[in-house]
Amino acid sequence: MATLSDFGAFMERFILHPPQQLPLKGLTFAVKDIFDVEGYVTGFGNPDWARTHGAAVSTAPAVLAVLNAGATCVGKTVMDEMAYSINGENKHYGTPTNPCAPDRVPGGSSSGSAVAVSAELVDFSLGTDTGGSVRVPAAFCGIYGFRPSHGIVSTTGVTPMAQSFDTVGWFARDPIILNRIGHLLLQLPDMDPVHPNRIIIPDDCFQLLSIPSDRVTQVLFKSLEKLFGVVFPGEVVKHINLGDYVNDRVPSLKHFMDKSNEQKEYNIPSLVALSSSMRLLQRYEFKNNHGDWVLSIKPDLGPGISERIWEAIRTTDEKINICHTVRNELHAALTSLLEDFGILAIPTVPGPPPKLQTEATKLETFRVGAFSLLSIAGVSGFCQVTIPLGMYDNLPVAVSLLAKHGSDGFLLNLVESLYVPLKEQIKIAESMNY
Amino acid sequence: MATLSDFGAFMERFILHPPQQLPLKGLTFAVKDIFDVEGYVTGFGNPDWARTHGAAVSTAPAVLAVLNAGATCVGKTVMDEMAYSINGENKHYGTPTNPCAPDRVPGGSSSGSAVAVSAELVDFSLGTDTGGSVRVPAAFCGIYGFRPSHGIVSTTGVTPMAQSFDTVGWFARDPIILNRIGHLLLQLPDMDPVHPNRIIIPDDCFQLLSIPSDRVTQVLFKSLEKLFGVVFPGEVVKHINLGDYVNDRVPSLKHFMDKSNEQKEYNIPSLVALSSSMRLLQRYEFKNNHGDWVLSIKPDLGPGISERIWEAIRTTDEKINICHTVRNELHAALTSLLEDFGILAIPTVPGPPPKLQTEATKLETFRVGAFSLLSIAGVSGFCQVTIPLGMYDNLPVAVSLLAKHGSDGFLLNLVESLYVPLKEQIKIAESMNY
Repeated sequence: MATLSDFGAFMERFILHPPQQLPLKGLTFAVKDIFDVEGYVTGFGNPDWARTHGAAVSTAPAVLAVLNAGATCVGKTVMDEMAYSINGENKHYGTPTNPCAPDRVPGGSSSGSAVAVSAELVDFSLGTDTGGSVRVPAAFCGIYGFRPSHGIVSTTGVTPMAQSFDTVGWFARDPIILNRIGHLLLQLPDMDPVHPNRIIIPDDCFQLLSIPSDRVTQVLFKSLEKLFGVVFPGEVVKHINLGDYVNDRVPSLKHFMDKSNEQKEYNIPSLVALSSSMRLLQRYEFKNNHGDWVLSIKPDLGPGISERIWEAIRTTDEKINICHTVRNELHAALTSLLEDFGILAIPTVPGPPPKLQTEATKLETFRVGAFSLLSIAGVSGFCQVTIPLGMYDNLPVAVSLLAKHGSDGFLLNLVESLYVPLKEQIKIAESMNY
Repeated sequence: MATLSDFGAFMERFILHPPQQLPLKGLTFAVKDIFDVEGYVTGFGNPDWARTHGAAVSTAPAVLAVLNAGATCVGKTVMDEMAYSINGENKHYGTPTNPCAPDRVPGGSSSGSAVAVSAELVDFSLGTDTGGSVRVPAAFCGIYGFRPSHGIVSTTGVTPMAQSFDTVGWFARDPIILNRIGHLLLQLPDMDPVHPNRIIIPDDCFQLLSIPSDRVTQVLFKSLEKLFGVVFPGEVVKHINLGDYVNDRVPSLKHFMDKSNEQKEYNIPSLVALSSSMRLLQRYEFKNNHGDWVLSIKPDLGPGISERIWEAIRTTDEKINICHTVRNELHAALTSLLEDFGILAIPTVPGPPPKLQTEATKLETFRVGAFSLLSIAGVSGFCQVTIPLGMYDNLPVAVSLLAKHGSDGFLLNLVESLYVPLKEQIKIAESMNY
């Protein structure tokens, strides 16, 4: 009870001391060279950028939050130039070696951050994901990668690529660490894992895979069944055609439908249209951010990236408003599909990492499929995790789970609890080379 | 340069250790009894609420963030019942004593949090501000209080009052500590203070003051001039009529204009309309949050609060959509008024704290003026700080500064740099009893 000397201010007096142990104490990490670190130039993957920018005068809040939680930063990592690639090949600074498949690309643009984790040089790392720059290198390097719900982790002090898609993401080999970083950066309360009440499997998306889709879906299902001790009934696991669902619920996509029906045999038209709307808005925002710099400096840029950047510079505001409508419609459609505790499982990418120095034209099928899948979370702002599923034919396999905007804690908890059953199922699948 | 053993992942290797000293080490704080603290019942200011709710199973992220930064929590503070008052009088738990004016109300609803800081029982405290619950008790108790931009600090684990206005705010005697808490909770980077490029003085708002408005404006101006070493030219300091500005730019307010023109002599019609729209939406959201509980428990509620809560329970969705339009229009109007580095100075409240146990009807003029002023940040979502300006006639005086949504760091830095010149000007004003 209150006493006179407390001025009646207190309901109850007690002492809660600061925690004895900082949550990330003893862990090491690295940051993509897109984050400001006081005293260092933020290089943004390109030497002309580094040359024309001074040292950062303060450290990005996301990096500070991790440092303040007790982790030690050991350096800045190589990235794709201006974050404009998902390949991870950098002609200026070298292509980080994919520890899972040294003759394959590591994935980008957060290439060095993924490689540093995969090679066990650090416990975790920070990257950014605009169009897939955490999800793709995580899949290619056989590690966990998390893209949080858009707008939740501060991007202050992070060089922008395209703000309405930019997110701060992170990599780890261990989902317990992945979750711990999430709790810190997303300021999540501790809560017990919740059973998903629906698991949506879009069969059409799994048909994009160049490896047997059972290799992915069976490992995932069996692990979920082990975890929850049940065979999921039909009302929980739902097989759908996501392309049709999106086509019906996102009418403004008609403005991005490719009438030529080229590449029809291996794609999902509504998701290709979705990725077109994403890439248009991305180009437009990129141009507004960096058009003046590119035009005045004319930076030396690698193949593929140069073409994309100059295409972005030529973007007008035509159809930009429709891109915003697409986002709103997709957000609503996927929110009603998943609600608070549903997950959507999709392949992260259509197959294993491409060989180093594959020509861009030869990658076209892969890229169309990849962006069809990546734009689902990209446009909706939903959170997505990449989960490594071991090796198939000596190349890394991955799957992704998505949850609705703001359900990051639910998704991260689920991934952490899946770890043990997943390891077992992966072992079985690998032993059967299945 | 990269070596083979680092897989080419690094741009640069260096070591950044976790900080030796946690940013809030050695500071003590208290939290309003609206925040979940694991193992304690969140009482929400009312014994029937406490009786019908179990202990919290996790601690609110905002409280955890402060604990993790090294501060020690010493208890939970008294608040107004269900946060539905700005007075600070609680018939169940007693009214915390205002250390500046013991025969006056401390202000609410974060009454105990403000008193604990003002009485030097803690270094800082956490409160919440929906309609004014941090700004008002800060003004009444002669301390600093900060209401951040809406939606930036996590309200997870905080009992909701009306979500589209609810914010986590904080109190301190010292603006350096106020700023440090802000840097932590808002994840702000360190940056140098920026000169405001415009200072908007709405003369009509200062005319609401029951004390000489010069006592407030002169102390503020002279301090700003001292700080920046200049007499601000006319293009920086702009005197405006905010009522007219809002009336012109927020056309949907016409739906909330009081046609009776009652109380016309002492109010600003468009701001009274603004506060009507705020209070309507607040009632509607409160009902959706707590209507079922109130109807089933029929809690014992204090005078004034009981009437407001039962009025809220009867609210329909009529005009709710217009409230959202008002918000969008006001947000746009004030954004173009202030831009990134402008500040709007207003009285926090129309005058000194009312006497204890003043009848509600006698307070009506004060409340109309108070909510006219409080709804500016409330509806726009802008950040607002209450700055104590010493005593006038033995009662505390305060002023508020507002900055646009997201300019919290700018505002907090400005307040910290103003501290020294302000102390000097307050001393001069107090010595002249001016």
